Amino acid sequence: MVISFYSASDNDSDLLEALHRQLASTSVTHIIEPWSDNTDPASVVYSISWGAPDNFFNGMKNLRAALSLGAGVDHLTSNPGLPADVPIIRLSDAGMGDKIAEYVLYAALQGHRQFDLYRKQQQQQLWQPLADIDAANYRVGIMGLGVIGTIIADRLHHSGYQVSGWKRSTVECAYPLFAGDTELGAFLKDLDLLVAVLPLTDQTHGLIDKRIFAQLPAGARFVNVGRGKQVNESDLLAALDSGQLTAAVLDVCETEPLPDSHPFWTHDAITLTPHVAGPTQIAQSAQQIAESIQLIESGKWPAGLVNRSDGY
Amino acid sequence: MVISFYSASDNDSDLLEALHRQLASTSVTHIIEPWSDNTDPASVVYSISWGAPDNFFNGMKNLRAALSLGAGVDHLTSNPGLPADVPIIRLSDAGMGDKIAEYVLYAALQGHRQFDLYRKQQQQQLWQPLADIDAANYRVGIMGLGVIGTIIADRLHHSGYQVSGWKRSTVECAYPLFAGDTELGAFLKDLDLLVAVLPLTDQTHGLIDKRIFAQLPAGARFVNVGRGKQVNESDLLAALDSGQLTAAVLDVCETEPLPDSHPFWTHDAITLTPHVAGPTQIAQSAQQIAESIQLIESGKWPAGLVNRSDGY
Repeated sequence: MVISFYSASDNDSDLLEALHRQLASTSVTHIIEPWSDNTDPASVVYSISWGAPDNFFNGMKNLRAALSLGAGVDHLTSNPGLPADVPIIRLSDAGMGDKIAEYVLYAALQGHRQFDLYRKQQQQQLWQPLADIDAANYRVGIMGLGVIGTIIADRLHHSGYQVSGWKRSTVECAYPLFAGDTELGAFLKDLDLLVAVLPLTDQTHGLIDKRIFAQLPAGARFVNVGRGKQVNESDLLAALDSGQLTAAVLDVCETEPLPDSHPFWTHDAITLTPHVAGPTQIAQSAQQIAESIQLIESGKWPAGLVNRSDGY
Repeated sequence: MVISFYSASDNDSDLLEALHRQLASTSVTHIIEPWSDNTDPASVVYSISWGAPDNFFNGMKNLRAALSLGAGVDHLTSNPGLPADVPIIRLSDAGMGDKIAEYVLYAALQGHRQFDLYRKQQQQQLWQPLADIDAANYRVGIMGLGVIGTIIADRLHHSGYQVSGWKRSTVECAYPLFAGDTELGAFLKDLDLLVAVLPLTDQTHGLIDKRIFAQLPAGARFVNVGRGKQVNESDLLAALDSGQLTAAVLDVCETEPLPDSHPFWTHDAITLTPHVAGPTQIAQSAQQIAESIQLIESGKWPAGLVNRSDGY
């Protein structure tokens, strides 16, 4: 069995090594890195990739599944070289959820304990305690309550916050859950902090715009650990500048890396990180990928099988 | 029974009201606020205060105990108007511990997830992921493992960090514990983050100086939620400027409010907050103070009784 591998990240070699170890018990003849040898693409039966170029899938006419190295699969659904009938498998968590929850917890503490406002006061050389807020009175809404959204919700709940969630359709949930367009306003209207952790689909593209920000209470905060293309960046800037939003913590942007001279770089209400909230956890990802391949080989589909009409 | 009350904080009236409620079952004739009436100071049998002026205790010759509105009692031990034989009672936690632990967790996340370095990168318009670090490999040392230090240690441990502690003398402890001067070097040498939460005493005054910073691994971070006078501020600035320390999060300073033109205001490796890590929790403090008074009235001493020769 031949598996092709593509990732543009720095820890490629560690991940490849872990995949080799995990797949040793499978009948893998070899894992090819892109363009590393002259293997016939028609021999490739699985691809494991993140951000592969459009020509990556050329000639892979016997592909049984395309596995994503991350939880997001928009890099696969948007790749014109990947045939529409090839099943896509996403990492359903593989340790990333804990990392992202940690990131969101930092953002929640920054908002709830007002470290962002204290930073402004420091710049103004102003020593002035602000009103103390209890975590139990700080209302955090998770927009996108899937596998990772639920890990975030659990972490924030255990940290004492008042947690609610929003999802496209209703599910069993330990927290107050709002579902679909009709309940979006009710979800937003009482939040101190809106956390976006949505998959990028046709439905979520540009979803977070001025109508969303306007439905939040004045002075709310916003965190995006989903995808940058979900946010109307001009609307976000306008909401920050009007004071409708107090602050935003952004791990993702519409264009990454963020272009030179983009206003996010210098906006003092924006905390910006370079898409690092949920880095691939090598050992856990390799294990989950190997298990997915073994499951498919035994005739079953893993939990991470993407519904291509939903886009996630 | 007459109780005198002094606090310079904004929430005085809420706290006074809570104390009245809590003490309703005790034979309190009234609680006087300072200079609010002409009550004879000789009738005062308990004082409840924070940061009272030197003349506050004048004429209180029948004081049975002086209760602190906070965990720190240096504002009482250093008050020349309080006779040396009056027992001092501190709040042993009263909810402040959870607040301080929350603050320290934010500082730990800021260091461990390198948000401070990402902020610098944002200022430089640099989009560059840094090496990912697991909480389990991030070593946090709590200097001052008393009641509040232990609450901090527990919170960080449950958040996945590698926790150790340092204390003047050895005690039973769930974490690796280093005790006294002789073990201070061994405590410091492996820390990514040093958290100071010491009481201010003759022994801790100026304790945190260049010798302490030099014993930390290069690039470590520092958090102070104890007292500003424990830190040699010039040595701290030198350690930050040399790179021996990467960053400092300071809730306390030698002089508060921090004087105009003090270099802490503008140092880009310093996160400064105006002594807000552990604000007095009104309901819990009022309850603990009332219980302490009732215990003393029944002939016993509460756990918060200060050993005046140790200073805490």
